[in-house]
Amino acid sequence: MMTRAHDPESTSETELLVCVKCRRGQQIHGDERRPGQRLYDTLRTMALPDGVRLLPVECLQNCDHGCTVALRGGERWTYVYGNVDEASHPDVILDGAARYHATGDGLVPWRERPDHFKRNCVARIPPATYHPAPEADPT
Amino acid sequence: MMTRAHDPESTSETELLVCVKCRRGQQIHGDERRPGQRLYDTLRTMALPDGVRLLPVECLQNCDHGCTVALRGGERWTYVYGNVDEASHPDVILDGAARYHATGDGLVPWRERPDHFKRNCVARIPPATYHPAPEADPT
Repeated sequence: MMTRAHDPESTSETELLVCVKCRRGQQIHGDERRPGQRLYDTLRTMALPDGVRLLPVECLQNCDHGCTVALRGGERWTYVYGNVDEASHPDVILDGAARYHATGDGLVPWRERPDHFKRNCVARIPPATYHPAPEADPT
Repeated sequence: MMTRAHDPESTSETELLVCVKCRRGQQIHGDERRPGQRLYDTLRTMALPDGVRLLPVECLQNCDHGCTVALRGGERWTYVYGNVDEASHPDVILDGAARYHATGDGLVPWRERPDHFKRNCVARIPPATYHPAPEADPT
């Protein structure tokens, strides 16, 4: 079992960022709510996992593959996920957010990730504390 | 002119993250260096802009649209760029990194961005200090 134990000292809050400007490729008419805003509004009505905070963001700039959410917090890697459907994916997002928050480094074991997260990771960013081992000079 | 003035108190270092595992869709034979590693090795031989530090990362997970780099630091938005060519783009990346570092928030005015950055932003993430104004309850 490759599950990493949660570091009890790394209990920092997890932020679930939601791009509220996302059109998800649709034409938006008048004052119609955008898909990204609908996703955020739905998540706001749901019970969030312990330690997870919801945060709207005006454009995560993954516009060709929205809707888009990101998870970050503490010393965890930040993960960005695309192709989110505002109607069918809120439960999946909260499941993934809970699993993410349960780690100290953000690295949820592959087999424990929601299927949508396995196939729709847009990018990940190491924590600010990331310091790779120095490499030998390439010359 | 919409250029934001650089906040003199925000002189934090900029990190230029390079995914050194990127195959850029190629078959890699034996111990051949991957395109991501070649990109990183080339950047290491170049004069970096003041305040910019180069950092190798083992997978930024933008594997379908590599090579991939990211810029972050201080209270700036983090930007991830894909479709980077390890041979022709190092100068462009360093130009973009210098312009990014010259800002306090990471928001380089559109017309001042390198063309490759205009067309190949994979995602952006707000700084950890990002706190949007509270919204009215959607119900």
